[in-house]
Amino acid sequence: MPIAETPEPPYTAVIFTSTRTPGDNGYTQMLQRMETMAAAQPGYLGIETVKDGLAGITVTYWRAEPAAAAWTQVAEHLVAQQRGQQVWYDDYRVRVATVGRDYGWG
Amino acid sequence: MPIAETPEPPYTAVIFTSTRTPGDNGYTQMLQRMETMAAAQPGYLGIETVKDGLAGITVTYWRAEPAAAAWTQVAEHLVAQQRGQQVWYDDYRVRVATVGRDYGWG
Repeated sequence: MPIAETPEPPYTAVIFTSTRTPGDNGYTQMLQRMETMAAAQPGYLGIETVKDGLAGITVTYWRAEPAAAAWTQVAEHLVAQQRGQQVWYDDYRVRVATVGRDYGWG
Repeated sequence: MPIAETPEPPYTAVIFTSTRTPGDNGYTQMLQRMETMAAAQPGYLGIETVKDGLAGITVTYWRAEPAAAAWTQVAEHLVAQQRGQQVWYDDYRVRVATVGRDYGWG
């Protein structure tokens, strides 16, 4: 996983933590489609995602919160969210946060 | 991974994304010690962590940013951070964020 190249703060982080139900049930195909669509949204900055078995954390970064909010309302994404609740996820939590500072190597 | 039971926003999220160097080199033991110590810090709310091979995302939650900042300055944690840069991590980024809203199941 490459670490997302985000600009100087402030920017928005959407932290999505989840536990999956067993079986794929079309999840992988939907996920690839959603990741491609999200990356084409206005204000998208990047994504970091790690999965281990049924557990996953995905953080998407956005210029500001309205950009993140707009993505949740895209029709095809709404369908995916509904299917997520019905089929793919056992539990999940979405946290919308403003990154005020960041630091890395060195 | 259980999803952290956090209170009503606002609260602070520290998003730590990393790629490890190969080999353990004492990392697992240090990590367990740091997770135990962090959980005993004032203002600690919870942790979510997922690893896949050398990639990892860990999010720790705190009542407010001073609590998160204080943890970075604990002596044993400072030693661990230094060793992280010298030995354990190939790359990492820390993002300190304020969670303004969250939502989950239903």
